[in-house]
Formats: sequence, structure tokens, C-alpha cells
Amino acid sequence: MAPNTLHLRDDVGVTFARGFRAAALHCGTRKSTLDLALIVSDTPARGAGVFTANLFCAPPVLLSKAHLHSATLRAILVNSGNANAATGDPGYQAAVTCAEETAYRLGCPPNEIIVASTGIIGVPLPVEKIIASLDQLVANLTPDGGADAARAILTTDTFAKQRACEVPLGGGTVRIGGIAKGAGMIMPNMATMLAFITTDAAIERHTLQRLLKHAVDQSFNRITVDGDTSTNDMAVILANGASGVILQPEDEARFGAALDAVCHALAMLIVRDGEGATKFVSVTVEGAPSEPAADAIARTIANSPLVKTALTGCNPNWGRILAAAGRAGVPFDPAGVHVFLNNVLTVRDGIAAGVPKDVLDAIMREKNIEIRLQLNLGTARATVWTCDLSRAYVDINIAYT
Amino acid sequence: MAPNTLHLRDDVGVTFARGFRAAALHCGTRKSTLDLALIVSDTPARGAGVFTANLFCAPPVLLSKAHLHSATLRAILVNSGNANAATGDPGYQAAVTCAEETAYRLGCPPNEIIVASTGIIGVPLPVEKIIASLDQLVANLTPDGGADAARAILTTDTFAKQRACEVPLGGGTVRIGGIAKGAGMIMPNMATMLAFITTDAAIERHTLQRLLKHAVDQSFNRITVDGDTSTNDMAVILANGASGVILQPEDEARFGAALDAVCHALAMLIVRDGEGATKFVSVTVEGAPSEPAADAIARTIANSPLVKTALTGCNPNWGRILAAAGRAGVPFDPAGVHVFLNNVLTVRDGIAAGVPKDVLDAIMREKNIEIRLQLNLGTARATVWTCDLSRAYVDINIAYT
Repeated sequence: MAPNTLHLRDDVGVTFARGFRAAALHCGTRKSTLDLALIVSDTPARGAGVFTANLFCAPPVLLSKAHLHSATLRAILVNSGNANAATGDPGYQAAVTCAEETAYRLGCPPNEIIVASTGIIGVPLPVEKIIASLDQLVANLTPDGGADAARAILTTDTFAKQRACEVPLGGGTVRIGGIAKGAGMIMPNMATMLAFITTDAAIERHTLQRLLKHAVDQSFNRITVDGDTSTNDMAVILANGASGVILQPEDEARFGAALDAVCHALAMLIVRDGEGATKFVSVTVEGAPSEPAADAIARTIANSPLVKTALTGCNPNWGRILAAAGRAGVPFDPAGVHVFLNNVLTVRDGIAAGVPKDVLDAIMREKNIEIRLQLNLGTARATVWTCDLSRAYVDINIAYT
Repeated sequence: MAPNTLHLRDDVGVTFARGFRAAALHCGTRKSTLDLALIVSDTPARGAGVFTANLFCAPPVLLSKAHLHSATLRAILVNSGNANAATGDPGYQAAVTCAEETAYRLGCPPNEIIVASTGIIGVPLPVEKIIASLDQLVANLTPDGGADAARAILTTDTFAKQRACEVPLGGGTVRIGGIAKGAGMIMPNMATMLAFITTDAAIERHTLQRLLKHAVDQSFNRITVDGDTSTNDMAVILANGASGVILQPEDEARFGAALDAVCHALAMLIVRDGEGATKFVSVTVEGAPSEPAADAIARTIANSPLVKTALTGCNPNWGRILAAAGRAGVPFDPAGVHVFLNNVLTVRDGIAAGVPKDVLDAIMREKNIEIRLQLNLGTARATVWTCDLSRAYVDINIAYT
């Protein structure tokens, strides 16, 4: 998690790291808003990525996975409004074309381009609109373009998400910046979630992959909005070495902590911007026999529609929390369970601890709710972050096409 | 499933079978509505039951499971409004007291009484209100009391659910009748769902248990409203032999089909009455490598909030169906999948089949939607039944305490 000493900036993102430029414009894959972003490293960069576990991988995911095998990467092209998913071979060809046309304009091989798409599934990508915009997009590239890129990748998000930090390292400083989009369908294993991270440290590919995987596991893979996962998610990092600092083994922990912090901060922004969210909720299960057991229970609680609607209603209905825990498929003794709501012991040994209703009501009216279960079985623990389930979630997802 | 030749009646329920009486009244566990039901066999009956898989079993579930070991059973006492769940040892003692006081008035041992509760979790059962009503309840027992009992077990249900049938068997006729309640938290393995079945056939206990288990697996365990499961669910059957017909091995299939039909009909009523439901939805996965694989994919689709809100919005967003299937944890080839919406081939080999949007829109405006996936991998199939996710679901569950 975020080390206390690290200062995270919210005024800069992917172009905070040296040697990166970005631009965004409206190409027409969404209506009348920025919908196409390009992030470019001035020099060939090392890359790493983590992708959706959904069997229905969208073509841009398939292509970008393949391109990550390149020794170096130069750019990330992202469109919103159309996911280019479930579009078959023509969809794959559309992704290839986007990569080729971008590469041509940047003077690099097509396999140095990462392509990403987010939006509606099953509709052919209007690739001609994207290509028609590429000259302008490349011409607009600027070291100040990070914020525009952060806006262009959004779908039903209500605000742009970027974070960055600078870390003294190896006698110099290295910078890390990132942008993300989320909203609905956020769940373990990356779900309608895009995150793009840049750093000017020089990092060997396998190390970069390992550090990114760790950061994602502690952040984007620990948040859930509705339990749905998408066909298009990815988190990609580019490391171009423009700081002049080469990451040494002894500095890995320090760099990793900073990367973790950036990813964690972006993940928390995604939860706060969950579709229709009125609460920010953390669910921790501790005293579990194993971390996977704790995780399974925490996720079942976090995804329970009954728990989530109770949160919306400011309803201290801890029975729904117990009922969700009890169906998670993990054996434990119900009579040994404590439940804490914002640190107030609400259920002791599986039954009401006698907290006055007005106290519980006051807790539930808070914007930030921490649900904590103590199983009293072991020492393992896990936390997931989520939001509540409001009428607005339904309204947004009824309307969406 | 329901054999076509069987006539199911909706005007009678648990007192259609001979030798059963029932009564219901308002005791005060709910506000101003029938909230306490008693179903009694005039003679000792054989019993069988299936119970919630939730680790947090409510005390009435624990007690009733134990009482099913009795050679015979006499009665079922059900209250609504309070689940007597997560109430610890005092809750268990309350259930015991209910059974004892009922048994005393019926002149039978306490272990011949099944007790069931549904409603809010974690609040002590007002057992004194129940006991104070028992004399009146027993006095009111009548062969016409089935419909009142069906009403008294409801919580957020909007209508009472009963079905019955008569089957020529062994030179005579046997009758089967049942009542159920559902609403929210309906999911595999019995969830905030109560079902009580009576029959006047004479059936040996182990046979009865086997037949009930089969019927429940094909009905109540194949429906889902929101993926949540409850602490209190049970399906119990009493067989009192009052028809004079002793079930012979050669008649088991015929009786079983009738029992299946009654349970299936009650389960479909529960789905139609799902909290806030505007659609009745069946999800079938066929061409699967195994029945569990088909079942896992069907349930993931049926419980996806994004699929369910698309249904509410009459939105032919089949991409959400594919995305849900792709995260079910079952390996299959996305490029081999067909999706049928009300028998119209909408997705062929994983991509849009080119059905005009106005055709899809018309399908989605139907009240009954059949989603069918053909995996083209094998011969196994599974169906689950569900409803959509509307604003009303959220409203109901925000308000509920």
C-alpha cells in the first residue's frame, strides 16, 4: 500500500515521467467528447502488461498481448465508445490496422504499438474514423497532454483519473505517472478497466512485469463494482529510461512501493467513481485460515446485491453481511465471527453485540464504510474495495448502449 | 419438468391432500398482516426436507433438521417478519419453545414439529407473541386453511403461491399440494425460500427424501433472483398416507413427476415474483462438455447485474451475455459460441449474426426472455430461471428492515 512518505500528485499523469508525450481528440467513436488518446515515448521503452481473464478477450487485448513480446514499445493508442469486442476477425484486423497506421506515423514497427478499446461490445470499430484522426493526433503530441489522455479514455466515468509521483533513486529521481478508467464491470482480474502507467526509470522487462503484476494484484484486482468483468481490460506500463536512472536490485522495493502507490490510488478513484456509487466501502476479512479464504469471503460480501443496497439505504443490516459470508464456500464457525462496522464491534460471536440502533444508524450514514469480519480461525487477511448499489447504477445500465 | 398430462390447480395448496388442515393469523411478528401459519397432518406423517447450504443456518433450520430424524412428523409452524437468524443460543431456545408449545397443543412429541421463520436477521424472535397465538391458531385449523397459510409465509412477495394436483395411482388417487415464498435472495441451494409440500400418499422416508431432493434440484435450486442465499431456507414435505395408497416402486416415477411439477410450478412463481421483476428470464446453456459447466455459465449469466439491467432496459446487449459467460470459470472456445434470444440466432460463432436491430428490440420488449447459448462442445445442458434487475429491486432492498 501507499507508503506515508510518498507524495502523490493529482495534477499530472502519464506525461509526468520524462520523455513521454500525449494527445487526445474527438474522432467519433463516442459522441462529442474526447475519445481517442495517444501516449508516446520519445525513445523505445520497455513494456509490461496485465490483461483481462475473460475468455472473450477483445481483439485489441489479443493484439497488445502479442506486442508485449516485442523488445521495446513506443506508444499506446486508446479509443473509448467502442470496445472492438466480439467483432471476430474483422475486429482483429481493425486493431492491426490501428497499430500499423500509428506505427507508420511514429516511424516505428507496428509491434511497438499497444492498442486498447473500451465501450460497447459487438459493434464494428469505425476504424476509418480513427485513422482519419491520427495525423492530427500525432501533431498534437505534447508533454502536457496527459490530462487530455486521461479524459479521452473514459466511458461512464464521471471524472478523469490520474496520479503521479517522483522518487529519489540511484542518485537521481525517477518519475511514475498513470491514468485509469473504470465505472461499471469492475471486478477481480481486471474489468472494464484500463490503466496506463509510464516511468522514466530504466527497467529490465521481466522485472517490470513482476513489479506491475504485484501492483495490480494489490490494487486493480482488489476492487469490485458489480462482479462483472470485461473483455477489454488491461494495465500496461512503459519504462523509457529517460531519467538516466537504471533500476538496481537494491532499489526495486522502493520503486515497487511507489508503483504500488500510484496503482492503489488510481484503483481507489475507480471505486469512488463506480456507477451510481454513493459510498466508498472496504471489506476486510481477517483471522482467516488462508488468504484465498479471506479473499473469497470478502469478495462475496462486496458483491452481494443485498449488502450493497443496504449500504445505499444506510441500513445497518449486518444479517446480510453474515448471510453473504456464509455462502462464500469457505468453511468457518459462524459462532466465532465478529463483525466491525467502522471499528465498532457490531456482531460478537455471530450474534448482535448490542450496539444501540442510533449508533449503527450514524455509522451507516458515513460516506466511507469499513466492514471488517474477524473469523478467529487464523492469521490470514484480505481486503477488497467496493461501492454500493443505488438506483443510479440501474439507471445507468438500463440506458447504456 | 411438468408432464403435459398433469393438471395443476392454483386454487388449492397444502390442504388439498387429504388429512391435512391449516390455519393462519396475525401474531405480531409482522405488521398488520397474516404472519403465523400452522399446517397439521391429522395422523403422524412421514417427512423429508432440504435445507439452506448457508453456513449461518438459522436456529429453526437447525432444529427442523434434527426433527426430520423423527420417525413421524405432525405439523409445520411458520412465522414471517422475523427470521430468528443470527440470534445465537436464545434464538435456538426460542425455536425449541415454539416446537414444544405447538406439540403440547397438538398432543404429540415436540420432535414431530417443523419450525420455520423468514424475515429480518439478527433480531430476537418475539416468541411470546407466537405462543400467545397458538391456542387460537390450533382452534382455527381447517381443511380450507391452505390459502391463508400461503399468505402468512410471505415477506416482500407480492402474491401468494400455491399449486396442487391429483394423480391416479395404485388403484386410487393421491394428492400433492404445496405453498412457497420467495422474493429476494433466491439462489442455488435454497435462498430466502420456503416451500411446504403435503401429500396423502403413504411413502417410506428414504424414498420421500430422494423424491423431494430430485424435485428441489430441478426447481427451487435452479432459480436465482440476485445470487444471494439465505440463512433460513427449507423445503419440507409431509406424506400422511390418508389416500390409502401406498407408493409402490413401480409408481415412483409417476409420483415423482407430479411432485417435480408442483415444485417447478412454485419455483416459477417465485421467479415471476422476484423483487422488482419486470421480466421472466430463462438462461439455457447447451452443447456444454458437462452439466456442471453448463450450470456454472448459466448461473453467471443469470446473476450478472449488467445482463439483468440490460433486460430491464429491453436492451439487446448480447455483449454483456458473452462477457458474463467468459468469466464463469469454465473453459470454452469463444469463437464457437452461438447465442439465441427467444430462438433468434443473434450471435453466430462469437460475433453478431446480423439480426436487424428492430427485430432484437422487439424481442427484448417481451415479458418472457429465453437466453440460450450453444457452446458446440458437447451434449450437456442446464437451465436456470431468473428475473431482471430494476430500480424497484433497489428500492425494495434499500428500504427493507
